[in-house]
Amino acid sequence: MSVKLQICDSTLRDGNHAVAHQLGRADISAYARAAEAAGVDVLEVGHGNGLGASSIQVGIAAISDAEMLGAAKAELRNSRLGVLSIPGFASVERDLKPALDCGVDEVRVGAHCTEADVTRQQITMLRSMGVRVKGLLLMSHMASAGKLVEQAGLMQEYGAEAVVLMDSAGAYTPEMVREKVGELVEKLDIAIGFHAHNNLGLSVINSITAIRAGASIVDVTARGFGAGAGNAPIELVAANLHVEQIEARIKLFGALDAADTAEERFVKHVPTNDSVTIASGIAGVFSGFAAPVRRASRRFGADPREILLELGRRRVVAGQEDTIIEVAMALAAERASADVTHAFADHI
Amino acid sequence: MSVKLQICDSTLRDGNHAVAHQLGRADISAYARAAEAAGVDVLEVGHGNGLGASSIQVGIAAISDAEMLGAAKAELRNSRLGVLSIPGFASVERDLKPALDCGVDEVRVGAHCTEADVTRQQITMLRSMGVRVKGLLLMSHMASAGKLVEQAGLMQEYGAEAVVLMDSAGAYTPEMVREKVGELVEKLDIAIGFHAHNNLGLSVINSITAIRAGASIVDVTARGFGAGAGNAPIELVAANLHVEQIEARIKLFGALDAADTAEERFVKHVPTNDSVTIASGIAGVFSGFAAPVRRASRRFGADPREILLELGRRRVVAGQEDTIIEVAMALAAERASADVTHAFADHI
Repeated sequence: MSVKLQICDSTLRDGNHAVAHQLGRADISAYARAAEAAGVDVLEVGHGNGLGASSIQVGIAAISDAEMLGAAKAELRNSRLGVLSIPGFASVERDLKPALDCGVDEVRVGAHCTEADVTRQQITMLRSMGVRVKGLLLMSHMASAGKLVEQAGLMQEYGAEAVVLMDSAGAYTPEMVREKVGELVEKLDIAIGFHAHNNLGLSVINSITAIRAGASIVDVTARGFGAGAGNAPIELVAANLHVEQIEARIKLFGALDAADTAEERFVKHVPTNDSVTIASGIAGVFSGFAAPVRRASRRFGADPREILLELGRRRVVAGQEDTIIEVAMALAAERASADVTHAFADHI
Repeated sequence: MSVKLQICDSTLRDGNHAVAHQLGRADISAYARAAEAAGVDVLEVGHGNGLGASSIQVGIAAISDAEMLGAAKAELRNSRLGVLSIPGFASVERDLKPALDCGVDEVRVGAHCTEADVTRQQITMLRSMGVRVKGLLLMSHMASAGKLVEQAGLMQEYGAEAVVLMDSAGAYTPEMVREKVGELVEKLDIAIGFHAHNNLGLSVINSITAIRAGASIVDVTARGFGAGAGNAPIELVAANLHVEQIEARIKLFGALDAADTAEERFVKHVPTNDSVTIASGIAGVFSGFAAPVRRASRRFGADPREILLELGRRRVVAGQEDTIIEVAMALAAERASADVTHAFADHI
């Protein structure tokens, strides 16, 4: 029996990043109806950083987790309701259990690609409760295929029914997708998924390449709605599945309608690339760095693309935002020194 | 000796479609400076439909061909100035000879993919004058690889130094690119190029795939600036060349800067996809049909996507816009008849 392709629509979770987590009840209801009609397998809902993340530090959501989940759940019949849980943001008693009471059908527990062990408690607990649970490996371009097999293996051991590789920086090429997804499909017993970002303009082909490499879950959002360069658009993934005649539950016109609905209602800006989002993808830096890099660039007079390329060389991850200031100051000082040959001349 | 990759920047020609041919002198000068600095090999300039096309039927340009070409030429030193010539729009005496007097370095003569013979007069004439000349095969997804080899072979025989496959409908998948470009590269003695459109979200990967299949010319525009779903963005093609370490004259930061310049100055809307542009790509219908299809859809109350899919089945090409009304009326009548099973149920 071939594994059936699952489309996970993260418009109402990853997309929430694009509007500073301000999606409200009416928009959630309207989009959930459209996603149900389109036949998405899972609709992921919540704050951009998942359950329990609403905070001054990463942004206060317009409405509570329970309100978001309730609004979506009321519209779903065949599509499952999903949530993201990142240990640290989300705790079991305060966040996960109340979410399950709202009718959540599956939980995706995420961690940095080399830190799968932090997902152990939540995955085992959810699994023991009989809840469908998947593991997410963030910033997965930073780890080798071998390392990813090891980390995904831990999640499988804890009881995850699938592991999804997150391209948090939009840094994957199709060749990287083929290699890493292929290796995981070969070495693991559970389903493998891929979550694309569009910094290099490759989100659609990376999603299709993942499927061809054996992935059975791909993440999408309406119009690519998400932070920075955005995600793989549901409407374009559906169009390519149609053209390539790849079987899935999602309906072409339903996906097109869902994307139109999202654009009419709450997509203020369809995600596009600019110099900073592209440099971010080349550097393999988490897209959340884009805004602080732009600010540091203005403050210190350093080229934001050079800041990003240097951050990429230093392999920074989320939480290391202080490094931005240090790099920006160093680049500005270097630029001020007229007799110093431009350190990045080779790259431009 | 490996063939050196040429980047043809059509921002000031194909992009003119996106602003109803209203690019003016100041914008052309500013962008030509940015393109020269970025190191593009050819900067194509003019009315969206090329030399001599300014007309009530396809749109009156803001300034004359000579003014556009003069403004661009003044900024170019290492980049060549290119023009598009479609026999029918452009005539030798009225359009081509004056354009050459403006300092045009190369002419691309285009025709529908099965009608290369209409380019004979212009290609042979330009060649006899010692002008660099290339052939363009429009709507090339509609012809088999064998037919394209035959038609490109005619252009080669007339004296074209290269033939470029135009994906006028944005209907190519990477597999189609690999097959058709590969076949032309194998069978012809001259350089082969590819001109992408983004209706299926594949413009970047199709450009990179064309290069890997042996193409030595790819067409780009800043931010994908062009009609409908737009072209392959110069900034994303440059980013992918950088990431894939493919050698080219174009500079990464220069390409990013050029795209930023275009967006600041004249890209009113960065091209994105919607239901209609995507359906157009799936159907393989020329993107110029999108606007009249939207109008017919509103007028007759038929789904614009169904109109496009039916037009695709009828294999319509530019010039057959009257068919839109016929199809829209038929679909509306069918919809009005409540007991008729939806003819397109299988597709949605």
